[in-house]
Amino acid sequence: MRKIVQNLKHVFSPHSVAIVGASETPNKIGNVLLRNFLDTKFPGKLYPVNPKYTELVGLKCYPKVSEIPGKVDCVIIATPAETVPDIVEDCAGKKVGGIIILSGGFEEVKRNDLAERIRKIAVENDMPLIGPNCLGVFNPYTKVDSIFLPRYKLERPKAGGIAFITQSGAVGSTVLDLGAYYGLGVSKFISYGNSTVLDEADYLEYLVHDKETDVIILYIEGAKDGRKLLETMKKVNKVKPIIALKAGRGTGGQAAARSHTGNIAGSYLAYQAAFKQAKVTEAEGITEVFDFVKIFHQPKPKGNRIAVITNGGGVGVLTADSIESEGLALAVFSEDTKKEMAKILPSYGNVANPLDLVADAGVEAYSRAIDMMMKDENIDALLIVVLTQTPPIDERIIHVLTKASDERKKPVAVISIGGTYTEAYRKILESKGVPSFNSPAAAVKAMGKLIMYAKYCEQLKKQKG
Amino acid sequence: MRKIVQNLKHVFSPHSVAIVGASETPNKIGNVLLRNFLDTKFPGKLYPVNPKYTELVGLKCYPKVSEIPGKVDCVIIATPAETVPDIVEDCAGKKVGGIIILSGGFEEVKRNDLAERIRKIAVENDMPLIGPNCLGVFNPYTKVDSIFLPRYKLERPKAGGIAFITQSGAVGSTVLDLGAYYGLGVSKFISYGNSTVLDEADYLEYLVHDKETDVIILYIEGAKDGRKLLETMKKVNKVKPIIALKAGRGTGGQAAARSHTGNIAGSYLAYQAAFKQAKVTEAEGITEVFDFVKIFHQPKPKGNRIAVITNGGGVGVLTADSIESEGLALAVFSEDTKKEMAKILPSYGNVANPLDLVADAGVEAYSRAIDMMMKDENIDALLIVVLTQTPPIDERIIHVLTKASDERKKPVAVISIGGTYTEAYRKILESKGVPSFNSPAAAVKAMGKLIMYAKYCEQLKKQKG
Repeated sequence: MRKIVQNLKHVFSPHSVAIVGASETPNKIGNVLLRNFLDTKFPGKLYPVNPKYTELVGLKCYPKVSEIPGKVDCVIIATPAETVPDIVEDCAGKKVGGIIILSGGFEEVKRNDLAERIRKIAVENDMPLIGPNCLGVFNPYTKVDSIFLPRYKLERPKAGGIAFITQSGAVGSTVLDLGAYYGLGVSKFISYGNSTVLDEADYLEYLVHDKETDVIILYIEGAKDGRKLLETMKKVNKVKPIIALKAGRGTGGQAAARSHTGNIAGSYLAYQAAFKQAKVTEAEGITEVFDFVKIFHQPKPKGNRIAVITNGGGVGVLTADSIESEGLALAVFSEDTKKEMAKILPSYGNVANPLDLVADAGVEAYSRAIDMMMKDENIDALLIVVLTQTPPIDERIIHVLTKASDERKKPVAVISIGGTYTEAYRKILESKGVPSFNSPAAAVKAMGKLIMYAKYCEQLKKQKG
Repeated sequence: MRKIVQNLKHVFSPHSVAIVGASETPNKIGNVLLRNFLDTKFPGKLYPVNPKYTELVGLKCYPKVSEIPGKVDCVIIATPAETVPDIVEDCAGKKVGGIIILSGGFEEVKRNDLAERIRKIAVENDMPLIGPNCLGVFNPYTKVDSIFLPRYKLERPKAGGIAFITQSGAVGSTVLDLGAYYGLGVSKFISYGNSTVLDEADYLEYLVHDKETDVIILYIEGAKDGRKLLETMKKVNKVKPIIALKAGRGTGGQAAARSHTGNIAGSYLAYQAAFKQAKVTEAEGITEVFDFVKIFHQPKPKGNRIAVITNGGGVGVLTADSIESEGLALAVFSEDTKKEMAKILPSYGNVANPLDLVADAGVEAYSRAIDMMMKDENIDALLIVVLTQTPPIDERIIHVLTKASDERKKPVAVISIGGTYTEAYRKILESKGVPSFNSPAAAVKAMGKLIMYAKYCEQLKKQKG
């Protein structure tokens, strides 16, 4: 790993943070930033920097970074583009650990001159520089938070194993918000914007060694060095699964991407081929990113034979349809399972896959059906449809489903469709690590991606063994 | 229209309802039904029927329907399958208006003997019979509600223009629940189960004449008479758009459908061809049904040229990608629009489609951009991305978006992605009739379906004119 990449540790886990462009005006970026660090009780030192003030929110304010006494690990810059090169130069003189530049106004509006100046200084000093034109970093473990969107509008997720690398701040922040909503845990959020100094491959390389990260989401519009990205993806995806979303697929999207971060989106076909070659899981939209990442914390299935349990026949049919259209298999139950299941079904029920427990089914029927399917060697994965609207379903179902997921014998995903009541159930399940979906098609597709990645890992093991 | 279909009016708008199998035991179907009618203050007469009681929840209880004094418009039956034929016979003797049979245990478990008995009695008496093996009817206008799922678990939507015809109770009820969640308005909900007497084509025919209905959702597993369905869809879809979801597409799904309602799912290709021939809008899952129906209340666009406004560049790129992959066009703004837009953008913004107002954009910038696009004759439809997480976006955006939708000049859809805060915004928008989506791909696909239907209506007009 290059030294400049290694040095990212100062940005992700700083003991001291300076905010250049700190402000007392509410809703200004420099004010939101300061509040973020104060609100989350950042345990390190915090230095507002702005020549206009001598004090800000009770903290001493410095005119420039070089005048801060003592070491500065991480500098966050939120001042107009023209002022940035001099500030970066000042930071280099001070030997700061690393820089995040939030400001826009560089390559994306053809100010490559400004970009080139900061790039040169950063590279010469092995000083990592994230951005410009980005949201920067959020690390729930160390409480670094350069996302200039107020916490009451954009919830921050709890600490966990999912890392986000995103070229677009908007896309990244919405995924972050959704993650918080469903109680997912995040290790590091990196919005890198124009990638003037460090690019997505550098972040991937850093994260493969990051103890807190176990799954990586990559949202990319255009890479500067396609070859480097491909080689890095290959290496990283063997160790930690990457879920990639490529934007700028058509010509209109490519033009939009260019004016967004100044990078050329490049041929989508080339990216698709690269993802395939590296066995990276490709998502086709934000919703899918989210769907896939939820299920990647489940245990890896041994094959593609899926059992479906349902208390609503129609939703079972739709799930079976999706299993076939995704090229997966409906499991054929063992004779033992069939016999046992006949005992728990009402007289008007049929033992089949999908197993329709019918609307009369209570929590106990689910519990018994799940237990049997966990034992049946003809079944690799479980999709459990729970329509919470039926009278016999009560909150004990949460326990049954969480238990099935916690056992970690086979991957489990829940399909629950509905309004307020159902949403409440789904949020509880997600917060307990049980992936839940409001669409059969989405659940099946996600399970399919997990099955594919599991197969790849199995092949790798055999090659080694 | 056949007399037996006409007579459905007694079921949908009854002055008197009898509930056979009424019960005092909480959570039993016969109890939930009774509570539904009492809770919603059904304005007509309510007759519990059960030989076990002489009184139920303060109402006189009758041993059989024929012993009720006076007319009975609608009878809801929730007793075991074996008892049903005698009850239907009793109803025929009493000359009731129509019957809903909720009970399962007929064709779907090969008790065709029971099914044939009730079919014969119903047909001979022109007595419409919905079901068996279904949830029956919900009509918010007349407060008929045979859905045996408690109201605290399954919210009922308000009165409006959307009719649901569904073979599966589970699928129908979840769509109903989602509809309530987002404040959509429903005209009639019909869960018809085994379609022993009346089928989907009959309900379509009834609804085309129904004043309260303007869009029809059809969830179908297997029709008994494909030719009749095709001809009816053709006729109805010219007057009111039909959104169809076909389940049982693959062999596994077909087997599941058969054991679900006893109907043969039939070749999916045949259904697809029928939908195409009738120009019916086909949805590929429950989520899509819901996505499409939301947008069908927007005005019909004149063409397929879409303008995108965004405050998050990346989400704009993803939207542009979807527009191209769905075969729609990114509008090319008129010169006037370009000039005006340059004035409202910050120096580092680019005038292009998608129009990236950047994260600094406030409500005023949206309002001006929308006004310009409504005037621009090169634009047929608007997709407005609003990431509510940015500081300058406040609740006044609701007014701006609602105004754009209420003007009914061009169809409008909103894309907002995020957690709790965003969900709250989206729910308000939906309740005001502004279709909102949490995925660019879903919004674009839905808009594409509206464009296609609008084109079909335009062709019909030309043929006539």
